[in-house]
Amino acid sequence: MNHDSNNTQRVKLTGADIAKHNSKDSCWVIVHGRAYDVTEFLPEHPGGSKIILKYAGKDATEEFDPIHPPDTLDKYLDKSKHLGEVDMSTVEKQEKGEDPEEKERQERIKNMPILEQCYNLMDFEAVARRVMKKTAWAYYSSGADDEITMRENHSAFHKIWFRPRILVDVEHVDFSTTMLGTKTSMPFYVTATALGKLGHPEGEVILTKAAHKHNIIQMIPTLASCSFDEIMDAAQDGQVQWLQLYVNKDRAVTKRIIQHAERRGCKALFITVDAPQLGRREKDMRSKFDDVGSNVQSTSGDAVDRSQGAARAISSFIDPSLSWKDIPWFLSVTKMPIILKGVQCVEDVLRAVEVGVHGVVLSNHGGRQLDFARSGIEVLAEVMPVLRERGWQDKIEIFIDGGIRRATDIIKALCLGAKGVGIGRPFLYAMSAYGLPGVDRAMQLLKDEMEMNMRLIGAAKIEDLNPSMVDTRGLGMHTAVVPSDTLGLNVYDPLVGPRMKSVKERPKL
Amino acid sequence: MNHDSNNTQRVKLTGADIAKHNSKDSCWVIVHGRAYDVTEFLPEHPGGSKIILKYAGKDATEEFDPIHPPDTLDKYLDKSKHLGEVDMSTVEKQEKGEDPEEKERQERIKNMPILEQCYNLMDFEAVARRVMKKTAWAYYSSGADDEITMRENHSAFHKIWFRPRILVDVEHVDFSTTMLGTKTSMPFYVTATALGKLGHPEGEVILTKAAHKHNIIQMIPTLASCSFDEIMDAAQDGQVQWLQLYVNKDRAVTKRIIQHAERRGCKALFITVDAPQLGRREKDMRSKFDDVGSNVQSTSGDAVDRSQGAARAISSFIDPSLSWKDIPWFLSVTKMPIILKGVQCVEDVLRAVEVGVHGVVLSNHGGRQLDFARSGIEVLAEVMPVLRERGWQDKIEIFIDGGIRRATDIIKALCLGAKGVGIGRPFLYAMSAYGLPGVDRAMQLLKDEMEMNMRLIGAAKIEDLNPSMVDTRGLGMHTAVVPSDTLGLNVYDPLVGPRMKSVKERPKL
Amino acid sequence: MNHDSNNTQRVKLTGADIAKHNSKDSCWVIVHGRAYDVTEFLPEHPGGSKIILKYAGKDATEEFDPIHPPDTLDKYLDKSKHLGEVDMSTVEKQEKGEDPEEKERQERIKNMPILEQCYNLMDFEAVARRVMKKTAWAYYSSGADDEITMRENHSAFHKIWFRPRILVDVEHVDFSTTMLGTKTSMPFYVTATALGKLGHPEGEVILTKAAHKHNIIQMIPTLASCSFDEIMDAAQDGQVQWLQLYVNKDRAVTKRIIQHAERRGCKALFITVDAPQLGRREKDMRSKFDDVGSNVQSTSGDAVDRSQGAARAISSFIDPSLSWKDIPWFLSVTKMPIILKGVQCVEDVLRAVEVGVHGVVLSNHGGRQLDFARSGIEVLAEVMPVLRERGWQDKIEIFIDGGIRRATDIIKALCLGAKGVGIGRPFLYAMSAYGLPGVDRAMQLLKDEMEMNMRLIGAAKIEDLNPSMVDTRGLGMHTAVVPSDTLGLNVYDPLVGPRMKSVKERPKL
Amino acid sequence: MNHDSNNTQRVKLTGADIAKHNSKDSCWVIVHGRAYDVTEFLPEHPGGSKIILKYAGKDATEEFDPIHPPDTLDKYLDKSKHLGEVDMSTVEKQEKGEDPEEKERQERIKNMPILEQCYNLMDFEAVARRVMKKTAWAYYSSGADDEITMRENHSAFHKIWFRPRILVDVEHVDFSTTMLGTKTSMPFYVTATALGKLGHPEGEVILTKAAHKHNIIQMIPTLASCSFDEIMDAAQDGQVQWLQLYVNKDRAVTKRIIQHAERRGCKALFITVDAPQLGRREKDMRSKFDDVGSNVQSTSGDAVDRSQGAARAISSFIDPSLSWKDIPWFLSVTKMPIILKGVQCVEDVLRAVEVGVHGVVLSNHGGRQLDFARSGIEVLAEVMPVLRERGWQDKIEIFIDGGIRRATDIIKALCLGAKGVGIGRPFLYAMSAYGLPGVDRAMQLLKDEMEMNMRLIGAAKIEDLNPSMVDTRGLGMHTAVVPSDTLGLNVYDPLVGPRMKSVKERPKL
Repeated sequence: MNHDSNNTQRVKLTGADIAKHNSKDSCWVIVHGRAYDVTEFLPEHPGGSKIILKYAGKDATEEFDPIHPPDTLDKYLDKSKHLGEVDMSTVEKQEKGEDPEEKERQERIKNMPILEQCYNLMDFEAVARRVMKKTAWAYYSSGADDEITMRENHSAFHKIWFRPRILVDVEHVDFSTTMLGTKTSMPFYVTATALGKLGHPEGEVILTKAAHKHNIIQMIPTLASCSFDEIMDAAQDGQVQWLQLYVNKDRAVTKRIIQHAERRGCKALFITVDAPQLGRREKDMRSKFDDVGSNVQSTSGDAVDRSQGAARAISSFIDPSLSWKDIPWFLSVTKMPIILKGVQCVEDVLRAVEVGVHGVVLSNHGGRQLDFARSGIEVLAEVMPVLRERGWQDKIEIFIDGGIRRATDIIKALCLGAKGVGIGRPFLYAMSAYGLPGVDRAMQLLKDEMEMNMRLIGAAKIEDLNPSMVDTRGLGMHTAVVPSDTLGLNVYDPLVGPRMKSVKERPKL
Repeated sequence: MNHDSNNTQRVKLTGADIAKHNSKDSCWVIVHGRAYDVTEFLPEHPGGSKIILKYAGKDATEEFDPIHPPDTLDKYLDKSKHLGEVDMSTVEKQEKGEDPEEKERQERIKNMPILEQCYNLMDFEAVARRVMKKTAWAYYSSGADDEITMRENHSAFHKIWFRPRILVDVEHVDFSTTMLGTKTSMPFYVTATALGKLGHPEGEVILTKAAHKHNIIQMIPTLASCSFDEIMDAAQDGQVQWLQLYVNKDRAVTKRIIQHAERRGCKALFITVDAPQLGRREKDMRSKFDDVGSNVQSTSGDAVDRSQGAARAISSFIDPSLSWKDIPWFLSVTKMPIILKGVQCVEDVLRAVEVGVHGVVLSNHGGRQLDFARSGIEVLAEVMPVLRERGWQDKIEIFIDGGIRRATDIIKALCLGAKGVGIGRPFLYAMSAYGLPGVDRAMQLLKDEMEMNMRLIGAAKIEDLNPSMVDTRGLGMHTAVVPSDTLGLNVYDPLVGPRMKSVKERPKL
Repeated sequence: MNHDSNNTQRVKLTGADIAKHNSKDSCWVIVHGRAYDVTEFLPEHPGGSKIILKYAGKDATEEFDPIHPPDTLDKYLDKSKHLGEVDMSTVEKQEKGEDPEEKERQERIKNMPILEQCYNLMDFEAVARRVMKKTAWAYYSSGADDEITMRENHSAFHKIWFRPRILVDVEHVDFSTTMLGTKTSMPFYVTATALGKLGHPEGEVILTKAAHKHNIIQMIPTLASCSFDEIMDAAQDGQVQWLQLYVNKDRAVTKRIIQHAERRGCKALFITVDAPQLGRREKDMRSKFDDVGSNVQSTSGDAVDRSQGAARAISSFIDPSLSWKDIPWFLSVTKMPIILKGVQCVEDVLRAVEVGVHGVVLSNHGGRQLDFARSGIEVLAEVMPVLRERGWQDKIEIFIDGGIRRATDIIKALCLGAKGVGIGRPFLYAMSAYGLPGVDRAMQLLKDEMEMNMRLIGAAKIEDLNPSMVDTRGLGMHTAVVPSDTLGLNVYDPLVGPRMKSVKERPKL
Repeated sequence: MNHDSNNTQRVKLTGADIAKHNSKDSCWVIVHGRAYDVTEFLPEHPGGSKIILKYAGKDATEEFDPIHPPDTLDKYLDKSKHLGEVDMSTVEKQEKGEDPEEKERQERIKNMPILEQCYNLMDFEAVARRVMKKTAWAYYSSGADDEITMRENHSAFHKIWFRPRILVDVEHVDFSTTMLGTKTSMPFYVTATALGKLGHPEGEVILTKAAHKHNIIQMIPTLASCSFDEIMDAAQDGQVQWLQLYVNKDRAVTKRIIQHAERRGCKALFITVDAPQLGRREKDMRSKFDDVGSNVQSTSGDAVDRSQGAARAISSFIDPSLSWKDIPWFLSVTKMPIILKGVQCVEDVLRAVEVGVHGVVLSNHGGRQLDFARSGIEVLAEVMPVLRERGWQDKIEIFIDGGIRRATDIIKALCLGAKGVGIGRPFLYAMSAYGLPGVDRAMQLLKDEMEMNMRLIGAAKIEDLNPSMVDTRGLGMHTAVVPSDTLGLNVYDPLVGPRMKSVKERPKL
């Protein structure tokens, strides 16, 4: 059969045509009704050849979609390998056996709490955890190594306590602010997170719509499931979006992305600098393995080649050689303010000021990259006194992200000198559990908390927040307690209260 | 039907009259045998219209009583809406279906431990937790956000250790003291807590009676379930009471309340300054929701309007604009000493001295307002050295409240310089579980502990307590330990002691 | 019936005689075959009248014995109330219904691990906990209030770490030492603990015998179950014993006790100064209550009068007015060295030097008196630098007790400057579980550990131990961690290792 | 029967010959087809006579092998007691009754995860724990006393956090380094651990082969299950091995061992200085006891003589008198660099420099010797600043071992100044679970982690690692938290998230 990819009027391919190419010697797959020859691409596939071969000669759309942005094949597969349209009526439907795990999940979805039962950001996470697909939950919720930094991110806020001021007139509380020149209703933005369609079929555009409703800035991720333009198109007039950028080894590609974003109206460029290589996330890897390989009995190390989890599958293009000497080039190709995302010590903040970028995000990538990286809030407490000492505090805008779950977390960051904070996973979870209404309510809850807590700390506006309002003596101590003597603990009879005459207990609150 | 509220001789309304007005278009309810038209009030009801509509056309007394002080309707509902008496014999009794939860609760009440099995304040809480109604327990026991401050309040005392003195003659121990000029048997007072009838049908007057028996001062709450006058009336000759005040937006109301209290013999005015808005208490909100809405299947955000918990329902009148500039006015309208309740940092204590108030309570409102507010005892340790440095320690009386459960907690506060401490929830729990005998025993237990521990620390009288008797090196460190590596913990086999030949274990102590 | 207590040849009383006096109006009891009229004593009984009335008109020996030293009745009950011998053949045997709790305990005793399975002091406690009577276990194992000091006592040692020296010749390790002039095989002594017969029918003489075997000093408790003379008599030639003294309000009694002890050969007098009143131990009180009153249904507070636990029952004679001004008198009535037991801060150690006593025990009474008293080892770290600064370190011998379970604990105390340490509960537990062989093995295990650890720290003899061998930076910080956010913890999926294909787990080590 | 051990052509012994000598009066055993008369050796056997007598008159090979190196009998049993070959066809096979524990173990082995499911070093431990024999697992996994140091070793790394540098070109990451003059692919070595055949029948040679594949240095243990020469023979050309030495009381033996090793090509001599006596490991002792003695009913202390665990059985030859004055002798008998293994404070490091050794390992013997010895990483943080202050940092190479499980642990040690780190147990576990492929994968995983984390900390080569990259403020605090008040904890209702309508939960990740 002749398949000339230039002939757009040509006869469609049939399922039978494709089905012949079902091995690593000749591997075709169907995606969205079009066939692709990926034989040569197999060894290069970041996710490993195995996962593709599973769909060799078949329709791979369902597997492909949530992990790959729609323009992936155009970008990464040479046009000569695009084989053209397939007559989908001739493609044998995959008879999926009933998946007991999916059946149980559907059962859980039926039993979901209603949206109004979510009173804080953690509640969405609790629901998402139960109703998301296992692999999707694993991708969103996983972190690097032992996930210690991931958990420390929130835990660090617990070391900061308030010194509230009383008898301040807080009848009218205004927590709107300005970030990078944009007026916004509250000092947080939706930070960039990858693969939104894993959580919800509509993907990142849901966040765009919620952000508009609440006048919140959205940062568009390089690794979105929706294409960049889809996300821009979903924005309303006047809505501000920023671009998060993984720098491509091919700077021409990078330049094209940046300038396209600027033309489309993006207002700032956040260059990710904490990910020369995407992290190992074992929870994610283990979940992928279980998914694909759980019935394999082999114990031989060589014969098995498995997925490394979603993170590895999508990140091979990132340039690990990116360095300070590249920054002037970025400043030269765009007028957007440039912010370094992922700065982790004061020395690098000072250098960022010196090279002339406009901001930094103190971030450890949500605990997904280097385990034992410190939390953004802890680094902030290290950075600001040095900046103030040099009188540089207004030369650069400082943001943090990681672990923010409560308005009190935001207030702590602002007291310490942050201009704003990024929030990522919580909105993903709200979206995954309840779609747009979920994200809407999540943002509204943050506003409710913000109003309450601004009042209670005695601040009528953002400018009133200052370092004297927080007690940070505990911050910066990384305390791990002495392992306990289990023999001693085992012989201790804990004190108990008065016993009921029968053992019937009240239900838990 | 004609119902002229001026005609006091008129024919009583019947159940059938009321039953017609059972919608939001016309909503009448019966409370204590009198009917009220609350149609126009529906949207303003702090607890939401839903909860009222549940009783539209019916007798709402049982729901109304424990949350609202008896004079609520007189105060907040225009007289024209008071429809007059109802012939209750004509009102259809609500056939309450048997409530399985209530049935289980009655079962638990039957199995209550006897009073003598309570050996400390926590024991009353343990019993109350089992025998109180779920919503009442939720209201009393809940705190702000993650309830971290609520728990820290007691936990902070665990960071203070004693440096007891030996060989002091402690045969005669006297722990009576003077607070705001009043001689009292022990340096604590019953602090103000809202809605006493949630716990016991008689409400706050039980606390009044117990306080009299033990010669303890009681602070009367603005949000009591009993009316202010009922509580005053329950006092015996010479018994001292103080007034806690939420400042009303309408200062005329505020003035009336203060001057009425002073006339009735109140000896001090505690102005609450940590609650420009009453806190979000999610445990309380969740319990209310479950109560009302658990069988609603809707997932739409807009259609549902639910109770925000008891706290929101009762606090809309509080003035969030209250500020330092209002203090001179308070000083001008009363001769009672004025104490600011809810001060949380040394700067505001100094300012309190400067504006001429007579005392402050270092308090975070029992952890019910701003989460991550520091405990009163920690703030005390910050405040006293500064006061002493300025020689101001006698210009103002310093009280603390929050988390006090043991006489040792009281002693620690007094060593650090407090004049006295407020205790709230423990007496509510004792009252809820056992009524007046419960509160009586709770106070007696505190006295027993106090006598014992004064002896053991080597202090024969209150004046002997001083800062050298406590070791506070650990206070002020807000330690959150590094999240653990669960992989490492999971592979560790804890040491165990010698194994019994069979597995039968002894019963727990 | 005529019963003249002077007539020693008189006819014995019969069971029927006694049985008539079975009420609070006339209450006789039999103890060890003799009858006593305790009617007037009822209200004074430290353990309450209730427990006596249970045996009114009956034989109370079995209940009396383990709590009261044999000379109790002679000492405390006026001779006129001693009614003379009873013909025990006429006394109705109490038919004890089978006690299911006791039956279960006998079952547990059958399943006891053999002695060789105890490898450390905690192991004896683990066995004792299972095989002791509940009330006895409760008395031994309980502490003051929340038992925080009791547990801190051992926990404090966990804050001290070693700085061992290598390449020291430790082929021959000698850990014998001298305490108060007595050569002993190891720097610990058996400290005084009350009511040994609760754990073992032979009581404290078991400790005497084991101490002799290992050349260890025993301190004889005032509140022993064996009489003082029984314990002295059990000692071998040359065996050294010390006397622990609760000072009686009646100094004549005190003097008699001291001088009797000195005559009998006691080598030192330890005056307890941390117990002007014996502590409230709620675990003990609760266990007594359950024992006596668990089937009482009354909820009325006044009708019930119950035991306050063993501690209260035995301590009413202690003088709470004892003070520094009494010390010269003690020095005047004996030539034994005098040691103050229960000193808890450096100020009082300095004063002890000044008044001329020979030693102090830094102790909090095993955590049984004042909760939040600091551990002896922590106070030691406070005391020694001050003594050394003044050059007073040889003017007084410093001992500590509390929480010592390992030879490493002893070594830490000696490194910091203690002359020796007291060990109490562990030997009680070894005795309760296994009798003399248990105590013997417990002491041998300590010696094995001591030899090993002296070698490993690089010390061939006691004098080699010094402060540079310990790292005490963590000591003295009383860390209580920030309460956790349970919402956050609940949504975290802990990392897990590779899953077995089936769930069968290995048995625990 | 005549059995002249010089007559090598003689008639073989029969099973019947041996079987007669089955008591402590005459005790013969067969090992590897040869008979030995161990009657006189019985009382000297470090593992006790009991375990030998179990095999008196029988073939003891299976019990002997995993604990004893093959040359043990030649070394320790006089030649006159070597009775010559046995005709094994005449030896009655031991009918082993089916061992239910072993049967369960075989079941667990069938259900082992496949190798690719191990993603980190802890995963091998998790598998080994399930599939190893109980006694073997107990020997490998046990530590001294309460195993607090053993666990602290890893836990200490959790107190060190990173200060990563961004925008460093890390495209090419090189983590090869040089230790004691040897170029190696990564800065860790396989440290010495005893009794490899307990985990795998091939023993230590598996580690040799894996080390070669990854160009890693192996340290050969004195107490290997394979003989020294077997391990040397397993090495490939150019592969570097070091010798770990327990110093024998007989220095002639010691000298012979050292010089033999040097001749065979060993490149360094690590003298163990933290084990004048091998530690008490109660978990190991308890597991041995259970194995041998669990059906013994005697409670008498004297009649029972049991194994003290493997550690005691193999270590009686170690010289506890070894001291600094011996070091010059070691320097005189070999040209190999000499490293002291087990140094634990800065004073001894300084002394090591002064006596002229070439390196030290800051180590506490994997937590198997002195409990509460500090972790190597903590001691490193104490040592390096002092060395640098004196300008001695290049006079000696500093290694650490203990608790290393992640590449981040290695990086932390190198940032603080270590030249390399030793890893022991993790490779034993990998070997025990999966043999050579297990160790291979374990090393590869470390390399993968190393590459990733070098990039993420911003270091392209080992020399880039420096102290400014770590935050060690938390290191050195030995925090034990205040014991909790269980009464207070018990009455707290933890916050919970929204409830599902039914209770079905998702499976754990």
